[in-house]
Amino acid sequence: MLDGVPRTRAEIAHLTGLSRSTVSARVDELLRAGVLAPAGAAASSGGRPPARVAFNPVARVVVGIDLGATHGTVAVCDLAGGVLSAETIDLDIADGPQPVLTAVLGTAGSLLDGVGRPWADVAALGLGLPGPVEHVTGRPVNPPIMPGWDRVDVPALVQAELGLPDLTVLVDNDVNVLALGEHATWWAEADDLFYVKVSTGIGAGIVMGGTLQRGARGSAGDLGHVRVPWAADSPRPPEDERELEDIASGPAIAARLREAGVDARTSADVVAFVRAGDRTAIELVRQAGREVGAVLATVVNVLGPSVVVIGGTIGRAGEDLLAGVREVVYRHSLPLATERLQIVPARGDSNAGALGAAIMAARHALAPEAIASWLARED
Amino acid sequence: MLDGVPRTRAEIAHLTGLSRSTVSARVDELLRAGVLAPAGAAASSGGRPPARVAFNPVARVVVGIDLGATHGTVAVCDLAGGVLSAETIDLDIADGPQPVLTAVLGTAGSLLDGVGRPWADVAALGLGLPGPVEHVTGRPVNPPIMPGWDRVDVPALVQAELGLPDLTVLVDNDVNVLALGEHATWWAEADDLFYVKVSTGIGAGIVMGGTLQRGARGSAGDLGHVRVPWAADSPRPPEDERELEDIASGPAIAARLREAGVDARTSADVVAFVRAGDRTAIELVRQAGREVGAVLATVVNVLGPSVVVIGGTIGRAGEDLLAGVREVVYRHSLPLATERLQIVPARGDSNAGALGAAIMAARHALAPEAIASWLARED
Repeated sequence: MLDGVPRTRAEIAHLTGLSRSTVSARVDELLRAGVLAPAGAAASSGGRPPARVAFNPVARVVVGIDLGATHGTVAVCDLAGGVLSAETIDLDIADGPQPVLTAVLGTAGSLLDGVGRPWADVAALGLGLPGPVEHVTGRPVNPPIMPGWDRVDVPALVQAELGLPDLTVLVDNDVNVLALGEHATWWAEADDLFYVKVSTGIGAGIVMGGTLQRGARGSAGDLGHVRVPWAADSPRPPEDERELEDIASGPAIAARLREAGVDARTSADVVAFVRAGDRTAIELVRQAGREVGAVLATVVNVLGPSVVVIGGTIGRAGEDLLAGVREVVYRHSLPLATERLQIVPARGDSNAGALGAAIMAARHALAPEAIASWLARED
Repeated sequence: MLDGVPRTRAEIAHLTGLSRSTVSARVDELLRAGVLAPAGAAASSGGRPPARVAFNPVARVVVGIDLGATHGTVAVCDLAGGVLSAETIDLDIADGPQPVLTAVLGTAGSLLDGVGRPWADVAALGLGLPGPVEHVTGRPVNPPIMPGWDRVDVPALVQAELGLPDLTVLVDNDVNVLALGEHATWWAEADDLFYVKVSTGIGAGIVMGGTLQRGARGSAGDLGHVRVPWAADSPRPPEDERELEDIASGPAIAARLREAGVDARTSADVVAFVRAGDRTAIELVRQAGREVGAVLATVVNVLGPSVVVIGGTIGRAGEDLLAGVREVVYRHSLPLATERLQIVPARGDSNAGALGAAIMAARHALAPEAIASWLARED
């Protein structure tokens, strides 16, 4: 139904395989919630023409927030993931949850004002954080770059800050919301997508069977701490057993650049040298791509995705990382797994994280339980 | 509902989050299909007590068939996966699809007779094959040990053999049906389970988010062709880049045994020597476990399952393979990923594959589309 195409109850029954009576009961409920709206009548072969209904994405709005180490992006979106308004502000995640959340929720309030929607219209709020999160509880778990957030009940803090104890607040790590956003926006027809973020850290978001998979306790996607298989053409000696993040992340590449006499510290520095055409930087990024590819070759054989998306500051710096990844994955994965595999750069822009968080919120808001409780509150 | 607990419509609405009217329409449909049956009435605070309904697993039956290289196991099950009758026959998969299917479908017919159910009562038939299968079409794809089955439309052959063109026939590879059966029977509360079969080949079945994940084109689960990370304590030199199946499968272990002067050829030979206490065989199996563990360490970090199940002829030969797997996985995976991870032997018996295939069929038969078309045919 989310495609917005107007349909009759009979057409919906046919598409879903549910009975006419089940569909009618459910459609009435969604009409009452405003999530479906009456659309033009269908052609009739005689008698009263059957009424059509269509998804009404502006029945409510959702707020998506993407927090990074030094910025926060806020987006107000409709229920179909259309961005109504967005803004990025500077902040320091290390200041801790209270001042950071006060700042971004203030921005969210201003954006809502700007589009003329009160907080009461917000069906849910999604939040992406730069560290491991136990999604079920919304609590960060030992987040390295934000120690002051460890085990904090983020949903409760958001509700308290807004004075909205019933607001649904969903928290996840930033790579998961990026994967969700990229999948929903560009690859909705692909059931199996693997999103890799290569920046200060290296992580993955996994969509399988059309659904974001978080693993037990939300621990899925840790690519950064995987041991990299040694390869005969690797510049490392085999005894040098390393984890992916130690050899292919932005800071790891910057350290290699410093060894070569180039003053680089951060992922952004690495990207600047690549963009300036520095041959050492370019070769190091390509080699990092090969190391990422060595791990992805295993992932591709085991999970069999149809799309691998390469994102993050380093991943989006150009074609060099991608070229290294492709080189190794196609050499080491099976034909059945790679025959129709696409390895592509992330398409999302700087709002991608906030959009992904908003889509996470919207999906939750459209689940039957959520709509039922929303109707119950209005009755 | 599949737990068999009798519930009122109001209780079902509360559990599912669906509205009372949606639930009533759906319950009426399932009562009509016989999948739900009236159960005792609930206690009432006055007036007519609300009627309870319960899942009726014997409304129909399903047939599960597990084909191996030299045997076929057939099980007739109820819709909840209870085995009503089962039998294993000898066959040679290399004889090709027609004689093999004739044999196992004949066995299925005898078993149905024995439990007094006609083929008309069979809601669906599930079939596990020892090779890659494109699940959507039911066609094997380049199956190494059954070349005569390549691209064969197995569902059409089954329907033709039985003269039942409308029978739903689902085909999958044997590891997927084993994973499905193990999950449904023993680990239903675990959303994320990774099943590894170590026999003549090495493959995996992946349950994530409670659902069997087949990947794009059904290619997921290929562990056997993953390159094994070299480890400093490995008996192999680092230049010896090898795929998992070449160093840890039954035939690979048998080849090492022959190098040590022991006459072993097959997985069964390896198991016999292990059971007889042969120290070389035991150490080789344990080392194979370490190599499997080196690959599983990556899988555990990336997928974050709560349960890893080790099955297959070699996997079930005792604790040796399991001990090697555990040793390496716990050393090389992150605490967040392994804190509550269980690595356990497969519990299913020799009927496990057929049971898994039957459960695959039952799940499909209980989907709304299937029940709708079944009602439509009876109307």
